[in-house]
Amino acid sequence: MPGEFDFISWIRSQQSASKSVLLPAGDDLAILKWSPDDLLLVGVDQVLDGVHFDSSVHAPRAIGRKAMNRNLSDCAAMAALPAAALVSIAAPHGIGQEYLQELYLGIKEAGDKFNCPIIGGDTASWPNKLAATVTILARSAGVTPVTRSGAKPGDVIYVTGPLGGSILGRHMTFEPKIELARRLAQTYPITSMIDLSDGLSRDLQQICRESNVSALLNLVPVHEEIEMRRDGHSPLEHALHDGEDYELLFTSPDLIPTDLAIRIGQIGLEPPAISRTVPRVWIQGPSGQSVPLEPKAWEHPL
Amino acid sequence: MPGEFDFISWIRSQQSASKSVLLPAGDDLAILKWSPDDLLLVGVDQVLDGVHFDSSVHAPRAIGRKAMNRNLSDCAAMAALPAAALVSIAAPHGIGQEYLQELYLGIKEAGDKFNCPIIGGDTASWPNKLAATVTILARSAGVTPVTRSGAKPGDVIYVTGPLGGSILGRHMTFEPKIELARRLAQTYPITSMIDLSDGLSRDLQQICRESNVSALLNLVPVHEEIEMRRDGHSPLEHALHDGEDYELLFTSPDLIPTDLAIRIGQIGLEPPAISRTVPRVWIQGPSGQSVPLEPKAWEHPL
Repeated sequence: MPGEFDFISWIRSQQSASKSVLLPAGDDLAILKWSPDDLLLVGVDQVLDGVHFDSSVHAPRAIGRKAMNRNLSDCAAMAALPAAALVSIAAPHGIGQEYLQELYLGIKEAGDKFNCPIIGGDTASWPNKLAATVTILARSAGVTPVTRSGAKPGDVIYVTGPLGGSILGRHMTFEPKIELARRLAQTYPITSMIDLSDGLSRDLQQICRESNVSALLNLVPVHEEIEMRRDGHSPLEHALHDGEDYELLFTSPDLIPTDLAIRIGQIGLEPPAISRTVPRVWIQGPSGQSVPLEPKAWEHPL
Repeated sequence: MPGEFDFISWIRSQQSASKSVLLPAGDDLAILKWSPDDLLLVGVDQVLDGVHFDSSVHAPRAIGRKAMNRNLSDCAAMAALPAAALVSIAAPHGIGQEYLQELYLGIKEAGDKFNCPIIGGDTASWPNKLAATVTILARSAGVTPVTRSGAKPGDVIYVTGPLGGSILGRHMTFEPKIELARRLAQTYPITSMIDLSDGLSRDLQQICRESNVSALLNLVPVHEEIEMRRDGHSPLEHALHDGEDYELLFTSPDLIPTDLAIRIGQIGLEPPAISRTVPRVWIQGPSGQSVPLEPKAWEHPL
């Protein structure tokens, strides 16, 4: 029966060259020569069967693409350029080489769009569900990384697209907004940025906490796909709390052209009271009053 | 109920400082300033419940230590110095904060011994078993990395300790041999090196394949714990095929002092026939003849 080592041989036959990679996958560790001009950014993100995808519905190629694209979206959130990735797979017993190759090709396909080769990994099988973990290395490449902690009183809050209803399909098919993020960060003073993975209400709260500011939302663009849903939640509720939009949420003191981003609110002028009980994120209600917006989305109970 | 975000807050309260880490865990990606004198080495390795540990037997602290130590052992195998790690955890629903904190503290404890801070990660829960994936970044720090591909005809083959029976306990408690690896690589011409995770027969085959050489074993040191086993396999078979010893296997043209490593064989003087069917690894039988040694260990069927 073909096993782990045959799969590793096959992976090595698929590797793309990269001038900064001195030794690719196949040894104990990969070796890179990092440019002294570049900051090194690094992160890890996993996709789990039944949580981030459903293996009874989604094809392995699509699962692979999502596993990589989530990490590429983290690069976008920092305005960084992807450099290389590592892939760790926990595969159900008997899943077969062909399935794993499709999964790998999905990961590679998504990476190739950004010249991001797979330089290492780990594969093991177990009598459980599929989990795929991608580690991403990225470089600053001439753009200072944008963190979550720089939002300032009075900054305008933007998103790069309409929100909500990603679960209907876009959570598997989104494209990481790396070029847009880098263009924004090169052209305008972007004070903070995050990619919307946990939902607007929660991700905006992250920016507010890290920047020690409050925020008031007044115009949240609702994705057209939501309108059709019949689950008791309003389209606005979906746009505020649904996860996995993978649009960029950012702040800037400047006016950003409407073809690049949508203005959704403003950072509060007064510094917020430092307390976990005082809400940081507010939304303008139907009659103009500000009401606290509780973060509701996608927190995993442990 | 405490969730993922409380766990992340707790993790951030545990972080150790490191001068090369400009931005630790808590943003989309961590940011490091990499020294231009250093090569960047990177790898990933996972531990799965029921495969690499048994959550009904092993404490979370011990599981965490193993998850990190497997990656630190990969650093040893390249003679590299650990620099930083990222941790991705797929946690069973309802596992509880305390369990995850213990797991994390085990990972941190193992990293702290080598000044290797945890700089990022991802936690999600699912209705399945525990999986912990560690990504390691390491630096060359003045020692040229030792790969698997440099073994030369006539080199002597060494291991750093007796082998076999790791499953009786050592697979959870081993210490990564980073100092020894770097001392060896700084002092002697080490032509190839690997850490013994898949078993001597298989890992030596890896070196032979990557270096395009053959090997003859004549004296394999058997760990004393094996002698007590009653499973139909001889102690020598255990020493040859058991996985997870995490001793170093390396080659050198020089004689290495016996207090540093044990001589177990020699790389063949003739280049091997290039064929998958001709065995690369041989062992001296009881009456002095060479017999092929089939790799048997720990390959995961997929």
